[in-house]
Amino acid sequence: MTPQPDPQAGAAVKAADRAHVFHSWSAQELIDPLAVAGAEGSYFWDYEGKRYLDLSSGLVYTNIGYQHPKVVAAIQEQAAKLATFAPAFAVEARSEAARLIAERTPGDLDKIFFTNGGADAVEHAVRMARLHTGRPKVLSAYRSYHGGTQQAVNITGDPRRWASDSGTAGVVHFWAPFLYRSRFYAETEEQECARALEHLETTIAFEGPGTVAAIILETIPGTAGIMTPPAGYLAGVREICDKYGIVFVLDEVMAGFGRTGTWFAADLYDVVPDLMTFAKGVNSGYVPLGGVAISGEIAATFAERPYPGGLTYSGHPLACAAAVATIGVMEEEGVVENAARLGAEVVEPALRELAERHPSVGDVRGTGMFWALELVKNRETREPLVPYNATGQAATPMSAFAASAKAHGVWPFVNMNRTHVVPPCTVSEAELKEGLAALDTALSVADEYTE
Amino acid sequence: MTPQPDPQAGAAVKAADRAHVFHSWSAQELIDPLAVAGAEGSYFWDYEGKRYLDLSSGLVYTNIGYQHPKVVAAIQEQAAKLATFAPAFAVEARSEAARLIAERTPGDLDKIFFTNGGADAVEHAVRMARLHTGRPKVLSAYRSYHGGTQQAVNITGDPRRWASDSGTAGVVHFWAPFLYRSRFYAETEEQECARALEHLETTIAFEGPGTVAAIILETIPGTAGIMTPPAGYLAGVREICDKYGIVFVLDEVMAGFGRTGTWFAADLYDVVPDLMTFAKGVNSGYVPLGGVAISGEIAATFAERPYPGGLTYSGHPLACAAAVATIGVMEEEGVVENAARLGAEVVEPALRELAERHPSVGDVRGTGMFWALELVKNRETREPLVPYNATGQAATPMSAFAASAKAHGVWPFVNMNRTHVVPPCTVSEAELKEGLAALDTALSVADEYTE
Repeated sequence: MTPQPDPQAGAAVKAADRAHVFHSWSAQELIDPLAVAGAEGSYFWDYEGKRYLDLSSGLVYTNIGYQHPKVVAAIQEQAAKLATFAPAFAVEARSEAARLIAERTPGDLDKIFFTNGGADAVEHAVRMARLHTGRPKVLSAYRSYHGGTQQAVNITGDPRRWASDSGTAGVVHFWAPFLYRSRFYAETEEQECARALEHLETTIAFEGPGTVAAIILETIPGTAGIMTPPAGYLAGVREICDKYGIVFVLDEVMAGFGRTGTWFAADLYDVVPDLMTFAKGVNSGYVPLGGVAISGEIAATFAERPYPGGLTYSGHPLACAAAVATIGVMEEEGVVENAARLGAEVVEPALRELAERHPSVGDVRGTGMFWALELVKNRETREPLVPYNATGQAATPMSAFAASAKAHGVWPFVNMNRTHVVPPCTVSEAELKEGLAALDTALSVADEYTE
Repeated sequence: MTPQPDPQAGAAVKAADRAHVFHSWSAQELIDPLAVAGAEGSYFWDYEGKRYLDLSSGLVYTNIGYQHPKVVAAIQEQAAKLATFAPAFAVEARSEAARLIAERTPGDLDKIFFTNGGADAVEHAVRMARLHTGRPKVLSAYRSYHGGTQQAVNITGDPRRWASDSGTAGVVHFWAPFLYRSRFYAETEEQECARALEHLETTIAFEGPGTVAAIILETIPGTAGIMTPPAGYLAGVREICDKYGIVFVLDEVMAGFGRTGTWFAADLYDVVPDLMTFAKGVNSGYVPLGGVAISGEIAATFAERPYPGGLTYSGHPLACAAAVATIGVMEEEGVVENAARLGAEVVEPALRELAERHPSVGDVRGTGMFWALELVKNRETREPLVPYNATGQAATPMSAFAASAKAHGVWPFVNMNRTHVVPPCTVSEAELKEGLAALDTALSVADEYTE
């Protein structure tokens, strides 16, 4: 845990990166990736020996923190035993991971189709819904993210889909509830909820109920802004789906496996979807893994009719062994409970207190270890501190905010005009206080851009 | 390597599998997955202690065999050091894997975008081609397989795409050369090649050259039948792409990393594509990994314009460390050379000799450790031993063939009316002879169905 500086090694890593690695979501010549030497728990460090508290959990996926010794050991043991095996066989780690996940998913989501990550989980959930219903359309929300492959990014409701929208049909975007920026001119959560449900049902009526295979929602939208849905919304969507024979898909790739202080965000709202996608937290990304939890009714559709989808690494033994160990660690160490308790007792009061003192904070939302601060130029007008889709530009108020946090040893999650407080669910109270102090300083930088 | 029988453990693995694992490409209640206890080198074994020589390399991906100790050790070391880290950073294993791959890919395919597998590699290659050209269409071949996500399966030219073809535009299928079942009424390889190129260019003329973003081909189609292209075909496609400004994508997910007795199948034909997809052999699937190797010209498109695609596990350190070790093993142990030498000296002569003796063998095709036997009812009519898309049914001549091979301790790769001889590239001559002897016996079973 004491990083040893080795700038020469870091320079070599960086040079090979710049020569040969093509990075996700980036203009390749405009980025300057930090070379990372190591990580443990809630921290990582570079080759200069500088440590960062990771308030982003990578891309909101290392729910048990970095390098948990029990999960590392489980990977090492499985590697020695059987690293990989083809998907058509029964393999111990695969069976055990499926059993442990099915025991925790809500309702009768008891069959697990494993994928390599969240995007392909969404791809397959959509296919299952279309084949189960025989209908073509999928309804998804603006302000959402569902993955980077073609179908998953078409369903996504953020600017990353724009470049890939041609050539695809059957995806219809609607507005989910979000009182702070209501599309329904609502003034209360109750009104927002009722109007959002009316909007959804009217959209279905005009699209044709018999044409809609699925409604897919992140239970709590993640990268799009951690908009916790109002009480009754998801239950209302469940009712609409039942009324029209539509498959209800909840995407828990980011929200699942402890992030919200419950095993799944769906548990918070007492709602059971027909399909639920997962990835990230299932094994904290120690080995790539995702999947779809499938209801009995949809599984029955493929009992005697082959499911026309699959992949070489489905149920990868090494990835599944990491999931088995991760779930074990989360149970033994009370990781879900830690996220719930520190979220309620430390993070929420601290963020609300920051909001009182910093004029740049327009809204505070979240639960567990899943929080967003929405930064604004003006609290009355709620004008975002940077325009929609403006991040990624060289210098913005948000990059100034991020630079301040980093200078104080804290790595923030930043998307558009928001910072998300999404540390590992294993984070300690002392670490949270260190992170919140750096955010306090960085918000003072953001305050300078308010009007 | 001496499997200890433990039927009780096997029954538990099987029971949890049947209760909770949703399998790829399957009617879930009509399958009976074998519970696998362990594997080493070219063999695996079940819980009864029965061993199988794996002539399928899983799904044609364990090119270095099972449980190679150096790669297992590398995974264990990387797990202890840094199992995972987010894609926006420079990380040693990621940099090193990219460098080693770029050094081996043909031409200037020097930038590596890492994915989790082959399907998402194809998804991103298609997106890059569309954005690079600003054109909508992708031309791909019948008799091909490119992956199970929506875009990748639409491009695929086998029955697995049928259920997912609605709602997608922009994919046009053409016929690639395959003299044994020529779509061009050709009688020689030269004629097949010339007519296939004429067919492709005419298709482009009628689709509109200015609308075609990419032509994607498996360098040697894999699951579709290992149809080695005639001399000059791929060079001809390269010329057509250059003439019309079309991006040439070669899919080497199955053919790459030693399978053909060269690092890449493209090396056999002295052709350089603009984008090349890989997965499987890159680390023998010990950890899920795939990617796209990108030419300088296409990388330049995304130098100052963000590439609108990415994934959480892009360049996953554990997967990349396995790739670094795998490439090292392949160099140190002459794995590529072994595949070339034993393919030419042992497999090809033995398969041609089997073809002479067994009336069920209609055609023998391949190179390296990448061979297909096409089984027919009648050598004159070339009628397949089972109809197109008939495998998967309960009892067929092909399942009788497979059952015989398995009874003799050899696990064959079977697809439609073909068996592929695709053992690990580390296979020994003695193992090959054991496998070929079992095929000899199993072909006698197939012979009973000839007319």
